[in-house]
Amino acid sequence: MARTDFSRIACSIARSAAIVGDGWALLVVRDITLGLHRFDEIQRDLGVATNVLSDRLQRLTEFGVLEKRRYEQHPDRHEYLLTDKGRDLVPALLALMAWGDRWESGQHGPPLVLHHNECHHTTDATVTCRRCGQDLTADSVEYRPGPGGRNAPGTALIGGLLADPPH
Amino acid sequence: MARTDFSRIACSIARSAAIVGDGWALLVVRDITLGLHRFDEIQRDLGVATNVLSDRLQRLTEFGVLEKRRYEQHPDRHEYLLTDKGRDLVPALLALMAWGDRWESGQHGPPLVLHHNECHHTTDATVTCRRCGQDLTADSVEYRPGPGGRNAPGTALIGGLLADPPH
Repeated sequence: MARTDFSRIACSIARSAAIVGDGWALLVVRDITLGLHRFDEIQRDLGVATNVLSDRLQRLTEFGVLEKRRYEQHPDRHEYLLTDKGRDLVPALLALMAWGDRWESGQHGPPLVLHHNECHHTTDATVTCRRCGQDLTADSVEYRPGPGGRNAPGTALIGGLLADPPH
Repeated sequence: MARTDFSRIACSIARSAAIVGDGWALLVVRDITLGLHRFDEIQRDLGVATNVLSDRLQRLTEFGVLEKRRYEQHPDRHEYLLTDKGRDLVPALLALMAWGDRWESGQHGPPLVLHHNECHHTTDATVTCRRCGQDLTADSVEYRPGPGGRNAPGTALIGGLLADPPH
């Protein structure tokens, strides 16, 4: 069955999902963030099938999240690095990690602990309003039509639900 | 082929991916957040196959993100609502949406605009340090071993990469 092309849906969550809406893709980005850059290292860390890993590395590179760089010749050897777009994705992954820490850690506690080098504290990610700095919550936000919205599969009905901008 | 069970990996990103590491699951949570609660509404909005939607609703309910509630009898009709765990996921989706807005909106601009009811501004989500309130970035964080970490498939190598806590 063909993979649904989420990148064609007029929704930034769908478009993000087209790139990282997949467990292996998320873990590949995580591994590269944590310092594993070579195919065989990532493969050993994840225990993922090589064809699956090849596919995810290729997709993430095509989408501009990763850059493939040759670090040795004869034979050619490559490593994968985060691009600016990939580095900009890390905070969203930290928000997802914080949610997993809160709800899925079980009795053992979080697998990783985050340290913030600016304030020198152990911390976790919180999602805040860029304007006022307060936490954003499900209850404190409202969604309004944006310039790129449209009524089409993937967003056929939601346009009608959006709050109208104030008059 | 059996779906990989990401929930067994000692990583909060993997465990989150087990629940929402899938485009359809993300869009179902999005739709419910935006006010669509019934199977046929969500199906019409997304244009998704009914068996796929049934599967995602069932998984999200089993994982505690959604609650299935009967709102009518004879015949029984159900709606899906976010649980506390589901509502707590929304900020992480907003962070992912902000990334998609920045990198995938193209010439048309963001499909949705976020309004913060606390400060009454149009805004977007930013991921910040819970301790100091500054933005978290790929460069400003360090990862340290947590109590729930282990060396096993999915995290076979990364344990050795983590920064040691200060002495």
